[in-house]
Amino acid sequence: MSESNRQLRLKTRPEGDVRREDFDLVAQPLPELGDGEVLIRVLYLSMDPTQRVWMRDIPQYLPPVAIGEVMRALGIGRVVASRSAHYAEGDLVQGLLGWQDYAQLHEKQLAASGYVKLGAQAQQLPLPTLLGACGMSGMTAYYGLTDIAPVQPGETLVVSAAAGSVGSIAGQIGKIRGARVVGIAGGADKCRYLVEELGFDAAVDYKAGDWKQALKAATPDGVHVNFENVGGEIMRAVLSRMVIGGRVALCGVIAGYNSDERPADDFSVAIYKRLTIRGFLILDYKQAKEAVQALGGWLREGRLKAEETVVDGLENAPLALNRLFDGSHRGKLVLRVDPAS
Amino acid sequence: MSESNRQLRLKTRPEGDVRREDFDLVAQPLPELGDGEVLIRVLYLSMDPTQRVWMRDIPQYLPPVAIGEVMRALGIGRVVASRSAHYAEGDLVQGLLGWQDYAQLHEKQLAASGYVKLGAQAQQLPLPTLLGACGMSGMTAYYGLTDIAPVQPGETLVVSAAAGSVGSIAGQIGKIRGARVVGIAGGADKCRYLVEELGFDAAVDYKAGDWKQALKAATPDGVHVNFENVGGEIMRAVLSRMVIGGRVALCGVIAGYNSDERPADDFSVAIYKRLTIRGFLILDYKQAKEAVQALGGWLREGRLKAEETVVDGLENAPLALNRLFDGSHRGKLVLRVDPAS
Repeated sequence: MSESNRQLRLKTRPEGDVRREDFDLVAQPLPELGDGEVLIRVLYLSMDPTQRVWMRDIPQYLPPVAIGEVMRALGIGRVVASRSAHYAEGDLVQGLLGWQDYAQLHEKQLAASGYVKLGAQAQQLPLPTLLGACGMSGMTAYYGLTDIAPVQPGETLVVSAAAGSVGSIAGQIGKIRGARVVGIAGGADKCRYLVEELGFDAAVDYKAGDWKQALKAATPDGVHVNFENVGGEIMRAVLSRMVIGGRVALCGVIAGYNSDERPADDFSVAIYKRLTIRGFLILDYKQAKEAVQALGGWLREGRLKAEETVVDGLENAPLALNRLFDGSHRGKLVLRVDPAS
Repeated sequence: MSESNRQLRLKTRPEGDVRREDFDLVAQPLPELGDGEVLIRVLYLSMDPTQRVWMRDIPQYLPPVAIGEVMRALGIGRVVASRSAHYAEGDLVQGLLGWQDYAQLHEKQLAASGYVKLGAQAQQLPLPTLLGACGMSGMTAYYGLTDIAPVQPGETLVVSAAAGSVGSIAGQIGKIRGARVVGIAGGADKCRYLVEELGFDAAVDYKAGDWKQALKAATPDGVHVNFENVGGEIMRAVLSRMVIGGRVALCGVIAGYNSDERPADDFSVAIYKRLTIRGFLILDYKQAKEAVQALGGWLREGRLKAEETVVDGLENAPLALNRLFDGSHRGKLVLRVDPAS
């Protein structure tokens, strides 16, 4: 076990793309554990668009990461030392571990919401999948289409950022629920992947010139449910195809996360189509058992395909985050912090 | 009875403010009534922001008014001649009568949705009130706050365009339902009117420099329900004050009706506050009896105050419509077509 802990601490708030220099890489010896404290070796970190928002000093659902603070990130780690009766060496823990090699946490922090000890059943799945299809990403897709904007058999579901971690699961859940599923993604490769590997009914390449026409052609009966991850121009195009009374599960508007420019959205279509648009956050679903059981079952049965893009090295976290916005990954983007994991 | 019928027919689609020249004023003799036809003298016309949208060739909930067509408008008229067994001279009819002195309609058209014969109880109210507080405007306010985004006692309701036909009723319904009601309106006079005459708890003058600060001060517990008529910058300011899980009854976004410029709205707040935003149109409420009975009762009891701004003369319809957007009216704006009414 390494005696030093590397941490990436926010130094300056990025403008546009995240730069390596926006973070200080600090190495320091691991301190002694106090009573009730647990030392966790970080194995994998989840790379999520919401992290880009956490770097910004704007109103949001959690406090922004402070300058000088270790960058907040969800991850999976293994307990390597414990002075808590509730945690033993070898336990796997999922929660906010941060951009660092080791997280030193008190059992009281670990008892708070946002941390779970992974049981035997969870450990049958690969760790990246526990952060992706069977983690926050999958659960977000699950509740978006079962609670926020339930999709019914025969309805048309359009998913944006459809080759991403949430979108790829949302589309597959739509198929499991009997909907016609159309994905929007960037590039012919991703679109082929959606249709040929994930079983989407159609895919629209928003990087192709005629994509709005293609969206129209792919949704001859209009759009009943929109699982929205992108916002901006893509969301407007989908809204224009919605049926009267359509529902939008508003999961993300990443078109605006990376910039201070506001996307020019327009609510008038929400009126004349009598849309219900519901923003939601997965952190409201404290009891995620139902989702995890459903997702895990579908994964085991092969009805759900999990895909991850793995980047190595804690020091690569800042630049890796940009890949969430430039479209150069597929499925869940995770960072492998411990090369042995 | 005049032997000629003046009609205002759409000539060119307005850009920005409506101009007199955008309409042809055509006078022609009244044709003979065919079998089943009814001739209706137009008494009052309702002036509504949605009419500005009807003039535009964009997707919307009804077909745009065609070039050469009589401008569509809701109104109240009296039957002056009838070759239908269902209508007698003297009957009062409410429905889409159009910008004209006389509407000649077949009983089959009158039987379609959008037309009602006014009964004895309705006739106890002034005709402008039947187009305003006890008409579409009042019903829109009623269903917005009872069905789309029901407001509960003790909650804070913010209404934009609060001195307008819908907003002034929405705010009063909020008070009847026990909410704290804050109105947003333009100018000190309107704000005084909201608080002193209509009983709003507070009013925010968006023409004053510090209005966002004033909105914050007026909503110390945040905003639970937003009855939204305006959109754009005003809606963004209200959304920023909403509580988690807040509800928006999206009735109108008039900030964008008069121009082809899109307001720069932003859905990200809808996510981090988990908002439900529901667009709605009063025309979905086919059975409006409940609303009309409630509104009529409150009016008779003096719990609801109806205010109308009356403009005279059919020929003034185009320029009068602009008053809906420049803030120079209060309450319901109606056009008196028949000087004797």
